[in-house]
Amino acid sequence: MRLLSVEAINLALKDAEIGPDQVEAFYLGNFAGPSFVGQNHLAPYVASAAGIHGVPCTRFEAACASSGSAFFHAVTAVAAGVYDVVIAAGVEVMTKQPTPRVTEILAAAGDVGGEVAAGATFPALFAMIARRHMYQYGTTREHLASVAVKNHLNGSKNPQAHLRKVITLEQALSGKPIAEPLTVYDCSLISDGAAAVVIMAADRAPAGRSVRVKGIAQSSDHFALDQKEDITTFSANRRAAAHAYQMAGVTADDIEIAEVHDCFTIAEIVAMEDLGFCAKGHGGHYVASGATGLTGLRPVNTSGGLKSKGHPVGATGVGQICDLTIQLRGEAGERQVKSAQLALAQNLGGSGATAVVTILEAI
Amino acid sequence: MRLLSVEAINLALKDAEIGPDQVEAFYLGNFAGPSFVGQNHLAPYVASAAGIHGVPCTRFEAACASSGSAFFHAVTAVAAGVYDVVIAAGVEVMTKQPTPRVTEILAAAGDVGGEVAAGATFPALFAMIARRHMYQYGTTREHLASVAVKNHLNGSKNPQAHLRKVITLEQALSGKPIAEPLTVYDCSLISDGAAAVVIMAADRAPAGRSVRVKGIAQSSDHFALDQKEDITTFSANRRAAAHAYQMAGVTADDIEIAEVHDCFTIAEIVAMEDLGFCAKGHGGHYVASGATGLTGLRPVNTSGGLKSKGHPVGATGVGQICDLTIQLRGEAGERQVKSAQLALAQNLGGSGATAVVTILEAI
Repeated sequence: MRLLSVEAINLALKDAEIGPDQVEAFYLGNFAGPSFVGQNHLAPYVASAAGIHGVPCTRFEAACASSGSAFFHAVTAVAAGVYDVVIAAGVEVMTKQPTPRVTEILAAAGDVGGEVAAGATFPALFAMIARRHMYQYGTTREHLASVAVKNHLNGSKNPQAHLRKVITLEQALSGKPIAEPLTVYDCSLISDGAAAVVIMAADRAPAGRSVRVKGIAQSSDHFALDQKEDITTFSANRRAAAHAYQMAGVTADDIEIAEVHDCFTIAEIVAMEDLGFCAKGHGGHYVASGATGLTGLRPVNTSGGLKSKGHPVGATGVGQICDLTIQLRGEAGERQVKSAQLALAQNLGGSGATAVVTILEAI
Repeated sequence: MRLLSVEAINLALKDAEIGPDQVEAFYLGNFAGPSFVGQNHLAPYVASAAGIHGVPCTRFEAACASSGSAFFHAVTAVAAGVYDVVIAAGVEVMTKQPTPRVTEILAAAGDVGGEVAAGATFPALFAMIARRHMYQYGTTREHLASVAVKNHLNGSKNPQAHLRKVITLEQALSGKPIAEPLTVYDCSLISDGAAAVVIMAADRAPAGRSVRVKGIAQSSDHFALDQKEDITTFSANRRAAAHAYQMAGVTADDIEIAEVHDCFTIAEIVAMEDLGFCAKGHGGHYVASGATGLTGLRPVNTSGGLKSKGHPVGATGVGQICDLTIQLRGEAGERQVKSAQLALAQNLGGSGATAVVTILEAI
């Protein structure tokens, strides 16, 4: 985990053309290092190995939004003038544990004494969301599968994706059932990964390669699914998006590309609605229409998303920022979207108790 | 864990005369909830139960300095004008696990693949520090024991202390060996606990009851003990103290009372030196002189410290702030120090890879 993190940090430092001694604070997102690999106190553990010393080094945990949250706090501190140069990173090493134990570790992001004790794992919770969305809005299995097909196609063009495998709608529909209506193709991957970005005050950022954080917000919601009034929407998504749009002075219509939290295909459909990309209940039709494909009007998850790029939980939020930065710089190769200027990242924790939304602008 | 946290949050809200709906962000320190009680994603888990919704809710992990770090980030955000009213809290529930498992969970704050794999637990690491301090500076077992005797006496006067038991120097010296030269009386307690404080912008804080954060800093050091040049001092302590003194515009001489991180008695002796309360190497003589007793020139750990008040890891940092606030308000009852105006809290993570130092002033 340490080597993986240091590799990502070194790439970020090199890209920003600074040394570790210029880093004024270190923000690390990690969900469950102690459970996955037995190591805790992770921020100085990683920072020390990367040559970052004598500055605040802190681990942020917000389930699958851990590094989205680390990034939020890092950006907020730089924007407020506390620091000029910081690093936000994320890491998770998940593959050292057998799958049943991984499921158990992930379930600890839910209400362990409540929904988890009653037998709900995360696939089960999102299956309930999917079923309700189908019942309420006529969303279909084909709608869900179209998200998987798109994200696998995008991921096949991303050299950093975990599972670079193109799938057909038929394959997605006939996948091994995990929690009905979700098949294995509706579920994100168990991955190892790390991501890091350098955040600088605007007047310090190198011209030509930097992107601007135009808006950012983190929000929260009731913890367990059964406490929510409507499980087909996440109020934390909606609030974080509203704040981020307001801060950026833009609307959903202005967003040209997005990386969203497709931990399950239904989550991408719900995100489309919560972010205002389409009307409530229309998410299924919207994704199936091709609007979010690589050549669509608003490409979503051009990286391959959590579904194909992979979902090393604590790294995912900062990973989304990296992927969008690559797009806004025009360095995305085969998956490059033409001339996108405004991008959005949405990172979700648990069954929606945490959400972070970021709006990035090419400069 | 949820109930314990909510109890502390409700006490803080009541004390500040505000409701949970006025809280703009929630900062929770917790070291190892997933390992101790199997629950992760802890910030919205706790906040949601306390009625705090729709705002950034984030867990901070920095080993035994987890809530010191949460407090640092919370204060920094309010001082920078990001928020006007936030809560910083900490919680740990440790007693549901058998002691050998607690030792293992705590050891994950050290270098698991290095010093821990070689057999070092935290008592062993601090025993090495103690031995080196004895060798280098003539510190004695009696010096160590005098810290335990003082802190137990103070804790006996604190209704919120875990172990309200007065001990003699003879008892402390003849305690069961844990890791020589440390006996059971040199080691802090395995406790359950929670603490919470409301942090407000200066112009919002109620007069008469508030204390001012005059200086605060978090710093870091090499991760493992064997990477440090000198194990009888923690550079993170020294750097955090220097920054906090500078921010507050005071020197060590100005500090009238302190809560320091006595995870082991040797840690309090090292802290005396690192904070500049006495010269390097003189910590043993200093604590044995009575200067840090309740009626001494600079009382230290009037709460009883981690040794007697207890050490619910993730709650300790904010707990120190609570204890000093009680002192600065003159509400400490039997353990009240006369007319203290300037107080210092020092919270350490791991074997010194993280340190947070806060300076509080009565207003």
